[in-house]
Amino acid sequence: MARILITSGPTRQYLDPVRYLTNASSGRMGQALADAALAGGHQVVIVSGPVEVEYPAAAEVMRVITTEEMLAACRGVFPDCDGAIGVAAPCDYRPEQVAPGKIAKTGQPLLLRLVETPDILAALGEEKGRRWLVGFALETDDQHRRALEKLHKKQCDLIVLNDPSAMHAAETQVEIMDATGRVVAACSGSKASVAAKIVEVIGQRLTPGTTSLKS
Amino acid sequence: MARILITSGPTRQYLDPVRYLTNASSGRMGQALADAALAGGHQVVIVSGPVEVEYPAAAEVMRVITTEEMLAACRGVFPDCDGAIGVAAPCDYRPEQVAPGKIAKTGQPLLLRLVETPDILAALGEEKGRRWLVGFALETDDQHRRALEKLHKKQCDLIVLNDPSAMHAAETQVEIMDATGRVVAACSGSKASVAAKIVEVIGQRLTPGTTSLKS
Repeated sequence: MARILITSGPTRQYLDPVRYLTNASSGRMGQALADAALAGGHQVVIVSGPVEVEYPAAAEVMRVITTEEMLAACRGVFPDCDGAIGVAAPCDYRPEQVAPGKIAKTGQPLLLRLVETPDILAALGEEKGRRWLVGFALETDDQHRRALEKLHKKQCDLIVLNDPSAMHAAETQVEIMDATGRVVAACSGSKASVAAKIVEVIGQRLTPGTTSLKS
Repeated sequence: MARILITSGPTRQYLDPVRYLTNASSGRMGQALADAALAGGHQVVIVSGPVEVEYPAAAEVMRVITTEEMLAACRGVFPDCDGAIGVAAPCDYRPEQVAPGKIAKTGQPLLLRLVETPDILAALGEEKGRRWLVGFALETDDQHRRALEKLHKKQCDLIVLNDPSAMHAAETQVEIMDATGRVVAACSGSKASVAAKIVEVIGQRLTPGTTSLKS
């Protein structure tokens, strides 16, 4: 049994009180992972951006809007967890300046200067100590190489490769890759069945008392 | 009895396959207006951006993603309607260029050049002929003056003033203004009750056989 942090959903980075930059993410995979982890007897803490899905009542849910807020919430709860699954799609750029009032249209192009937001998965990787970390990679090109780079850069133990077409779909298809670049599991189907598989692989490889990747 | 077009929800303007610019809009007011219009015996066609709310089964629903798609869908159905309520929050800027693959982070600021998207309400206003048009104004500053300007610029018959704080709230507060700038109705409460009031005012002032603003 483990206490698992799950980040879920998108974050928003506002330009002004009305407009924002974000990523396509429904929170459904976070919901499915929470269900699967709870079904496996684990405790679940969800840090979620704005989504319409309903998370399981047995999970502790912390709501955030921006990437900075998501990072702060994760840093608060990660020390008391055994591991984290980063399935959120945090917005990785933010407008350098946020207008206090709604930006009026002028008929002219609007030049927006975006700066990078903090990398939540990398920050958790740096602070993880003995905790485990599972990331998700959503790449449109050269998926396996980029996913493995991401795993190493963010100090993940496993990374789940996901296709952009799955973002709002009911059916999904993933591969789970370890730190050697080996695909240790692949599955497709409903988000519920894929989530169950991911939690099973985490249980086999990362939670104590079972065969670990690192032992 | 009228056939009413309701635009609802946000639109999205993608930078690349993953990231997009959008507006905060849940589609709940569109849903409430559709319910209220159907309850009033009207026919309803909804053109909606991506939302999670469920529209009434008795409404015809057309799903779109971008502002351009929303405009095209509206232009297709507006000629067969008696009037339109524009409660959607179409994204009014789009990236001048859309990257075919996910833009890789470089550690450097990203300069994004945004251009204006077509104005759906204004386009319907230009093409309305004998049809009526009700707009929504969401302004953070100088609300009444800007709402009246918007009414005239977009050739609306009525405009509903809305507060940004209502965007994702269950309770809302609106004023309905006519072309003279007079507030002809004001109400607050659930979105359902506010929507019923808006449909009632439309019925009294804009649909044939009742006292019209223009008679």
